[in-house]
Amino acid sequence: MHAALALAERGRGRTAPNPNVGCVIVQPAPAKGGGKVVGRGWTQPGGRPHAEAMALAAAGEAARGSTVYTTLEPCAHVSPRGPACSDLLVEAGVARVVAALGDPDPRTDGRGHDRLRAGGIVVETGVEADGAARSMAGFLTRRSLGRPHVTLKLATSLDGCLALANGESKWITGAEARAHAHLERARHEAILVGRGTYEADAPKLDVRLAGLEGRSPRRLVLSSRHPRFRGGDGWEMVTSPQSVATLETVDHLLVEGGAQTAAAFLAADLVDRLLLYRAPILIGGGKPAIGDIGLASLADAHRRWRLRDRRMLGIDTFEEFERVR
Amino acid sequence: MHAALALAERGRGRTAPNPNVGCVIVQPAPAKGGGKVVGRGWTQPGGRPHAEAMALAAAGEAARGSTVYTTLEPCAHVSPRGPACSDLLVEAGVARVVAALGDPDPRTDGRGHDRLRAGGIVVETGVEADGAARSMAGFLTRRSLGRPHVTLKLATSLDGCLALANGESKWITGAEARAHAHLERARHEAILVGRGTYEADAPKLDVRLAGLEGRSPRRLVLSSRHPRFRGGDGWEMVTSPQSVATLETVDHLLVEGGAQTAAAFLAADLVDRLLLYRAPILIGGGKPAIGDIGLASLADAHRRWRLRDRRMLGIDTFEEFERVR
Repeated sequence: MHAALALAERGRGRTAPNPNVGCVIVQPAPAKGGGKVVGRGWTQPGGRPHAEAMALAAAGEAARGSTVYTTLEPCAHVSPRGPACSDLLVEAGVARVVAALGDPDPRTDGRGHDRLRAGGIVVETGVEADGAARSMAGFLTRRSLGRPHVTLKLATSLDGCLALANGESKWITGAEARAHAHLERARHEAILVGRGTYEADAPKLDVRLAGLEGRSPRRLVLSSRHPRFRGGDGWEMVTSPQSVATLETVDHLLVEGGAQTAAAFLAADLVDRLLLYRAPILIGGGKPAIGDIGLASLADAHRRWRLRDRRMLGIDTFEEFERVR
Repeated sequence: MHAALALAERGRGRTAPNPNVGCVIVQPAPAKGGGKVVGRGWTQPGGRPHAEAMALAAAGEAARGSTVYTTLEPCAHVSPRGPACSDLLVEAGVARVVAALGDPDPRTDGRGHDRLRAGGIVVETGVEADGAARSMAGFLTRRSLGRPHVTLKLATSLDGCLALANGESKWITGAEARAHAHLERARHEAILVGRGTYEADAPKLDVRLAGLEGRSPRRLVLSSRHPRFRGGDGWEMVTSPQSVATLETVDHLLVEGGAQTAAAFLAADLVDRLLLYRAPILIGGGKPAIGDIGLASLADAHRRWRLRDRRMLGIDTFEEFERVR
């Protein structure tokens, strides 16, 4: 399942409105030491083929009698874009399906597993469910809350500044941290900045990593009135944090600043995940990373964020927090 | 030597102007499995007895033929407060002395080791020298720079705020972090706050830890003019960051805020060590931890701080940085 979850990451940010699923097919080996992987798949850009269909195609006849690990319940609905994966799995003669999560899509929602069982396949569920929920946070947030999963990225000094008082911000973090932030861009369908950042910097917001140049997401600017464009075509405007819910095929949104934009999303409680890149420097009297979020008391600030990951990126520290719901 | 360094910590903040030294005496055991500790010592409050004298007194006759681990070269000078440790070691008939650092005190400065060798003792030096230099940072900074070793403590949110805009700051960090900060107080001869903090909070700045109540340091307020006292006796006033150099028997100074005081010490480049207690909360638009330090460009901010330690204290993160010199 860990391998399936890793494959699922390949699709993150490119499969909306479909979930980014990963799938691994294992043929039990007669010798000791475990099975042999005969097929791997992940949801392709735009949502099709599905992960299971791709993995089955790779496995061919080797799928017969196999165990299929998939991060989401195989779909039960036939669509013009392809057959139902649960039917494909039965036809292929697999012996066992291990699924991390049930699919909340009302066209499946248990019917996928039912079809598998009806076809004589042993079904197990709930394996690595938390990891799968995190992996498909965009799809699940869209399903449950009707909006994208929102990640806020901040790059600051130890004292929480994102720039000097004079505006200088290049660079606070080092090359490793900036590369990591570019990789995060590729995992989102859209990136958003505020009007101030847009007009001052006209940032490219592209993915400057070898091999991933084609993964640059849609670019959004948050502004209640039309911003002063600086030669940038391809930008879209959203008028409020709430209005990102109306963006079609955006299930993962990355908010990249500045301080007022971060504050607007936080004040609306629309941030699900926080990426913090911290350089080992002190600025003192610089520009704070986050503007006023309307916090009335410290008690309201506590128990909202949980540390998920922390690692060094060069001499900078990367931390990932997730919103406690 | 690690055990000797741990013992040395017991004296930190109470031995100025003497160094806080640790000493362990090991009698080689005939059986396999290493030696037996026969004496332990650490510099006592006020500077006497010295660590070696204390350890020799504990060992008694068992010191004969032993190996003595000490974090600093044994002293070579007889004083009205006690005999020279190097003479005591020769008289006790120890076989070998392992010292981490040489003593820069001109009354010793190599003469201690010379006396030991003249007395037939094998001397090794430089073992765990970095750890010993860190352990005796107060003494060594006083010797080399003529001022105390200065530690700045900050307790902040993830976005670098030490209070809400309305001033609320109790509490940002949790009980574990606050207990750790109290333990740090006990390791300093004096604690300093700014006039604003003093007048607003009249903080106790004492050590509220069971068994360490008697370890509360001297309390200083940084102010260019006489602050409005709020019933606090026992407070002393210093008029500038530089003037802490004139404080006798203060080799370790803990600066506890607020933002302007932190900035004053940083702007003067008088901070050697930074303790950062960070709660997993966002405040947004709060009071920044550090005021203007006169930074002209980001390039000047880099390569000044090195991460030394990081650990969780409950759900808060503790980080220790040291100034790169």
